Amino acid sequence: MTRQTRTDGSLRHLLTLEGLSRAEIELLLARAQDYVRPLGARPATSRALAGITVANLFTEPSTRTRISFELAARRLGAEVVNLEVQLSSRAKGESMLDTVLTLESLHVDVFVIRDAESGVASQVAAGVAPHVSVLSAGEGSVAHPTQGLLDALTIRQRKGRIEGLTVAIVGDVRHSRVARSAYHALTTLGVHELRVVAPPALLPGEAEFPGAARYTEIDAGMQGADVVMMLRIQRERMQDDAQLDAGEYFREFGLTSERLKLAKPDAIVMHPQPMNRGVEIASDVADGPQSAIRDQVSNGVAVRMAVLATVVRPA
Amino acid sequence: MTRQTRTDGSLRHLLTLEGLSRAEIELLLARAQDYVRPLGARPATSRALAGITVANLFTEPSTRTRISFELAARRLGAEVVNLEVQLSSRAKGESMLDTVLTLESLHVDVFVIRDAESGVASQVAAGVAPHVSVLSAGEGSVAHPTQGLLDALTIRQRKGRIEGLTVAIVGDVRHSRVARSAYHALTTLGVHELRVVAPPALLPGEAEFPGAARYTEIDAGMQGADVVMMLRIQRERMQDDAQLDAGEYFREFGLTSERLKLAKPDAIVMHPQPMNRGVEIASDVADGPQSAIRDQVSNGVAVRMAVLATVVRPA
Amino acid sequence: MTRQTRTDGSLRHLLTLEGLSRAEIELLLARAQDYVRPLGARPATSRALAGITVANLFTEPSTRTRISFELAARRLGAEVVNLEVQLSSRAKGESMLDTVLTLESLHVDVFVIRDAESGVASQVAAGVAPHVSVLSAGEGSVAHPTQGLLDALTIRQRKGRIEGLTVAIVGDVRHSRVARSAYHALTTLGVHELRVVAPPALLPGEAEFPGAARYTEIDAGMQGADVVMMLRIQRERMQDDAQLDAGEYFREFGLTSERLKLAKPDAIVMHPQPMNRGVEIASDVADGPQSAIRDQVSNGVAVRMAVLATVVRPA
Repeated sequence: MTRQTRTDGSLRHLLTLEGLSRAEIELLLARAQDYVRPLGARPATSRALAGITVANLFTEPSTRTRISFELAARRLGAEVVNLEVQLSSRAKGESMLDTVLTLESLHVDVFVIRDAESGVASQVAAGVAPHVSVLSAGEGSVAHPTQGLLDALTIRQRKGRIEGLTVAIVGDVRHSRVARSAYHALTTLGVHELRVVAPPALLPGEAEFPGAARYTEIDAGMQGADVVMMLRIQRERMQDDAQLDAGEYFREFGLTSERLKLAKPDAIVMHPQPMNRGVEIASDVADGPQSAIRDQVSNGVAVRMAVLATVVRPA
Repeated sequence: MTRQTRTDGSLRHLLTLEGLSRAEIELLLARAQDYVRPLGARPATSRALAGITVANLFTEPSTRTRISFELAARRLGAEVVNLEVQLSSRAKGESMLDTVLTLESLHVDVFVIRDAESGVASQVAAGVAPHVSVLSAGEGSVAHPTQGLLDALTIRQRKGRIEGLTVAIVGDVRHSRVARSAYHALTTLGVHELRVVAPPALLPGEAEFPGAARYTEIDAGMQGADVVMMLRIQRERMQDDAQLDAGEYFREFGLTSERLKLAKPDAIVMHPQPMNRGVEIASDVADGPQSAIRDQVSNGVAVRMAVLATVVRPA
Repeated sequence: MTRQTRTDGSLRHLLTLEGLSRAEIELLLARAQDYVRPLGARPATSRALAGITVANLFTEPSTRTRISFELAARRLGAEVVNLEVQLSSRAKGESMLDTVLTLESLHVDVFVIRDAESGVASQVAAGVAPHVSVLSAGEGSVAHPTQGLLDALTIRQRKGRIEGLTVAIVGDVRHSRVARSAYHALTTLGVHELRVVAPPALLPGEAEFPGAARYTEIDAGMQGADVVMMLRIQRERMQDDAQLDAGEYFREFGLTSERLKLAKPDAIVMHPQPMNRGVEIASDVADGPQSAIRDQVSNGVAVRMAVLATVVRPA
């Protein structure tokens, strides 16, 4: 694993939340909170990244996350270039690094990398010059660290704290980088109980998510939860499992307003988007008063601004 | 139909020119005129939209219109993000609105939307938060309001007025959003006579374009016109009509310098572009002294700046 | 050939280095050198092009060159729009010029054009208004003038001079615009000996590269060289030649550390990228101490800034 910190202990890359200290996560969240503005107000802007160039290297289509990073960087005064490149090891590793080093020579200082394969962002981070930072925008099913941070920020905003809470992560936990990064953020921040709730085929391996409670039925998993984090179900996954079609999945694991009543009365509902409405979540729940889904999106920009402002050193 | 104005009467969305008062249109044109600069001079710029984010959502390819909106927004100091998304109702309505609301949560304040289907921009306008504006950049065959405004501005610059003029709109009027928006702009501004000139199969329905004179032969329709607005003919349309191929269309409805002599000697020629030279218009006419086609393009940026500066409220 | 200079002798377009005087090239290099910053420092920025709009019209995919021009323009304060358009004469010449003139009417002041066909950039330069400049970013196999300048700048930085040097250009010289522009830059700057080194099928025609020494074996061509410029070999070319596959080419014409010893001990190695590692160049040479490849990339932005700042006249 590539080291994420510099020798002075400061954060240089953000590839995973695993191994970050509570103080490091707290600092990022506090910084992000400073960038939060209510809907309808002008967004926070600064010139903290003036003269800095950020390259978005997305090999998986993800308009939402790409634009979130792009706006975060631009609102801090950075130049942003977007590239759709084949970074994966299918393209030879060397040509991938050639692309990155070429961009580095063009004075790109920060690489934001998303790839369906695991390991690419780490490889890049291991190869770039000391002044360059690499941020993961989603890596296979391994990590999505800014998503984990925005989830933690959203929970804290809505519930006032992380400690003492019971959080249920529901759906295709096995393949979910969102679940893994949320797990690392929330356990580090002292969550009381973290539950993974999934059909048996979509539960993670036994060695994963240590300390989490495991449920194979949603009703039991919801019981008394403060936070219900729904995950997106990939249609491909359902095809793998003869028992699962969209309607079936909704009946077995979809979050309905009826089921939501099993959680605490003031429980909040989260989803990383894009949603399959009527598959993993009912529309009235997604748009209902307990939903924090739009806050998550808004917090995403604030978190990405905080991460960028943290890893880039002043000129 | 979604209301375009706020309760205080100010313009919030621009989806159609239909229903706008003469005073509202005059104000937009006056504002646009302020942004006009001669070719070769630096374009007008300001910081009126600093801190504002504009999203271009184009589902039909239209480099020219997209860049016109993009430069208009950036020259006013806004951030611009370009998205190619499937907004149409073929993609489910809810997922379309999810995309838009996600962008809204990223502090996008203005959506510029172009879609081959009608109704999409209105649906979005009906769903967004009160501080958000939606501008149509072309909606099916229904409306293209900024094109209507730039056409009116161009005519007024060249002829000094709209009132008292005879304007012939020539070509595939039936399927043309350009024709419909020009009709609304020019009739509201008091045009003397508006003519729709088309082969029978391409004339609009009887109930449409009330008050317009209808011609099925171009020579008659050109007679004494002050302004000749040629429309782009879609090759698909010609295939629908066994009698029409490109050469045939040019002979029957193409604007040649010979035909242009039927109009007033100082008549101007317009075209919304892209042109099919040698199909609906001869090259020497498109590039000739009576052509106002390049002014239309230039006025397009000025009009879009005026619309943006009008719908966005000061911070 | 379109004239590149204004009547007052100042540079307006940059389509080729052929015909530029030594003083003109020296001025561009000196200006570029001013924009060079070491890796890890903030890049040079200015507001020299504030209010200017640059359009990148790339019809051949070239992320690296497009981003190099884009960052050069933005770091001088220009707005940049990127278009992927079909400019080639396959699309009719007139519709190509319509696109360009439309952009001109949107107050685009500089066109950066890359096309696999030759002649497109010249045609555009001949058609635009007097205040507009056209820069070639690579034209067929004819010219790539900013590449020629960055190659000259890199050599001068590393060797202190151009005069007196022996430069070997190795590979598919016949089809290479990089070779042609390097030839023009280096001969104008007084290079001592310029060699073209290629398999017989890839040597340029007899009338081309006047004054250059011609070699068909790499070992002889390397002997005593100060600079070894390797060219990218197109896999399509190898298919044309029954004798050449990638392994064969590497054995016959690949630059290995063994072969590099035939050049002067302090010789530098260059490559315009992207590299086919293990085909025209061995990885250890590409990444070794004699390689100036990354300097070339970095100098590319500086050269493009210098060219932009030179052709655009103050407001």
